[in-house]
Amino acid sequence: MKIAVLPGDGIGTEIVAEAVKVLQVLDLKFEMETAAVGGAAYEAHGHPLPEATLKLAKEADAVLFGAVGDWKYDKLERALRPEQAILGLRKNLGLFANFRPAICYEQLVGASSLKPELIAGLDILIIRELTGDIYFGQPRGRRSAPDGHFPGAEEAFDTMRYTRPEVERIAHVAFQAARKRSKRVTSVDKANVLETFQLWKDVVTEVGQQYPDVKLDHMYVDNAAMQLVKAPKAFDVVVTGNMFGDILSDEAAMLTGSIGMLPSASLNASNQGLYEPSHGSAPDIAGKGVANPLATILSAAMMLRFSLNQPQAADRIESAVKDVLAAGLRTADIHSEGTTKVGTRQMGDAVVAAI
Amino acid sequence: MKIAVLPGDGIGTEIVAEAVKVLQVLDLKFEMETAAVGGAAYEAHGHPLPEATLKLAKEADAVLFGAVGDWKYDKLERALRPEQAILGLRKNLGLFANFRPAICYEQLVGASSLKPELIAGLDILIIRELTGDIYFGQPRGRRSAPDGHFPGAEEAFDTMRYTRPEVERIAHVAFQAARKRSKRVTSVDKANVLETFQLWKDVVTEVGQQYPDVKLDHMYVDNAAMQLVKAPKAFDVVVTGNMFGDILSDEAAMLTGSIGMLPSASLNASNQGLYEPSHGSAPDIAGKGVANPLATILSAAMMLRFSLNQPQAADRIESAVKDVLAAGLRTADIHSEGTTKVGTRQMGDAVVAAI
Ligand SMILES: CC(C)[C@H](C(=O)O)[C@@H](O)C(=O)O
Ligand SMILES: CC(C)[C@H](C(=O)O)[C@@H](O)C(=O)O
Repeated sequence: MKIAVLPGDGIGTEIVAEAVKVLQVLDLKFEMETAAVGGAAYEAHGHPLPEATLKLAKEADAVLFGAVGDWKYDKLERALRPEQAILGLRKNLGLFANFRPAICYEQLVGASSLKPELIAGLDILIIRELTGDIYFGQPRGRRSAPDGHFPGAEEAFDTMRYTRPEVERIAHVAFQAARKRSKRVTSVDKANVLETFQLWKDVVTEVGQQYPDVKLDHMYVDNAAMQLVKAPKAFDVVVTGNMFGDILSDEAAMLTGSIGMLPSASLNASNQGLYEPSHGSAPDIAGKGVANPLATILSAAMMLRFSLNQPQAADRIESAVKDVLAAGLRTADIHSEGTTKVGTRQMGDAVVAAI
Repeated sequence: MKIAVLPGDGIGTEIVAEAVKVLQVLDLKFEMETAAVGGAAYEAHGHPLPEATLKLAKEADAVLFGAVGDWKYDKLERALRPEQAILGLRKNLGLFANFRPAICYEQLVGASSLKPELIAGLDILIIRELTGDIYFGQPRGRRSAPDGHFPGAEEAFDTMRYTRPEVERIAHVAFQAARKRSKRVTSVDKANVLETFQLWKDVVTEVGQQYPDVKLDHMYVDNAAMQLVKAPKAFDVVVTGNMFGDILSDEAAMLTGSIGMLPSASLNASNQGLYEPSHGSAPDIAGKGVANPLATILSAAMMLRFSLNQPQAADRIESAVKDVLAAGLRTADIHSEGTTKVGTRQMGDAVVAAI
């Protein structure tokens, strides 16, 4: 088994190093190979997703990804900006199913903006379609407006699209995930306005008939953004498109107050996957040794479970993380009175020790 | 001056009746004419936005709107569903500038999901473009996929579009609003992925140069959804497109915990406007006399200020609402221990008395 390790920019290098350390201590047989991605790859090779990096990612069973991006690349043309690496990996590897758990750890309830009773025990799973929708839909570009309010004016446009099979496959992923949890799926759409999401709603409903044991409901995206704030624990599995999923998964993550703890997985049809923390590259604290490596370490656990067929090793990592939290160790982002503040490396060492 | 009164469905009739009562007591000279809209209009005339209603709305200086929608219309074809009335009014009246204040009233801090210190004193203004974007962009529909992951499969699609003048005019609205407040604008986009929002960002930046006294910053929509949860008070004026504005304005409204208090205004280039509460038609409590009429009453105040040039009358309503809150009157949605629970009509009467 082969893992492509792509640390990327900002705190990416530091946090991925800790996850690699944790993986190494498990004494499993896999090969790890590191390559440049994002701004780091642009600087070294002139492109955020160099050929060699893409080739490595394609050949590997799984990709362990840090984070990409930095304000300093904002002026580059879009095709060369760091985020293009992540979009390119999703597209080229066909990573259509994005798993974004939003979990509030018992000891970190206080870190949330929400009142403790609303957030304690939160455990929702947002499943975001990741290779379709307006992210990749063609045509797109700039032109002179062919009609509309200002015909002839300079216009930019994008195309939102979903085909029936694209919706079917992500719906199956959601229903199957729900079967392993509390058997409820909320499908989020905007069928009252968008043709794309009327099809989405129709297809999810049809697929749902194959899962009579799972309760399906539908919610408009604006309402979902509200209900997440009002009563997040009312959700279990949420399935939605690429654009709405981008927004709602980040909103849900931030509700926990501890986004530094949240992993993610992006899978294709053959369970090849890319694993990355839900947070970004945080250039402001890069290189200071203070970033929280736990989201990346927990992403490595998801990788073991989903792509490398090592569920027991995944369990070991996850309980080690719970142990270090229980022991009161905290990086700066989740630190509070009465707990012990540690740096990135100390946190990684503590997880290794707990394993 | 003429006001078109469109109560609509669910609690619409009850809450609009209270706002009309408040308007009448001000002793100003205007004519009010009522017409059917939404599900009620579909039942009476076979269409959610009958010709006569649209004509009345167009001729009026302002529209006072209740709410539309009910689950029972879910099975109708899209063109006949209640929501089409509101989309049709926006389009036909050219109501491109939607003002969605998210204010947390001092006495209602406890109603929020958020910790009091994060929400107390919140006063942000979300300005949502309302006649462009993927809401109205053509082409849209169903077809056989011309390319993509599953060529030939059944596909649904929509088009996101913005022209330069559409972005310019909403940007001016935002910068001018900011000048009357704390002189900060956050423009929300997804320029890292969408062509449409790269143009958006470019144009807002250009327009911003005409307002050197206003501080402009840019934020991606996913990050905005997070920062609203984390530190809502860091925002002042937020300007964004139709789709993102739909989601973020509802998220922000729910953060206050008292969406029953939040008015909205939708204006066109000649300050003709549609005024409606931020909440929906709440069919579950319709006819029970328990709905909160304050958002509609405050929408009437916005109407007096923006479309009817009666700022003093608007002030009178707004301070009357503050007075009834200070006196401890609360409808069920904002009721808490130690306050007096009242119904819709009693609340309207109390505002009238305070005026
Ligand atoms: C960096 C950006 C293109 C990306 C997205 O919008 O998908 C990010 O926000 C994410 O959610 O992984
Ligand atoms: C009813 C619906 C079409 C509408 C919208 O999406 O604009 C509503 O959510 C709103 O925000 O006024």
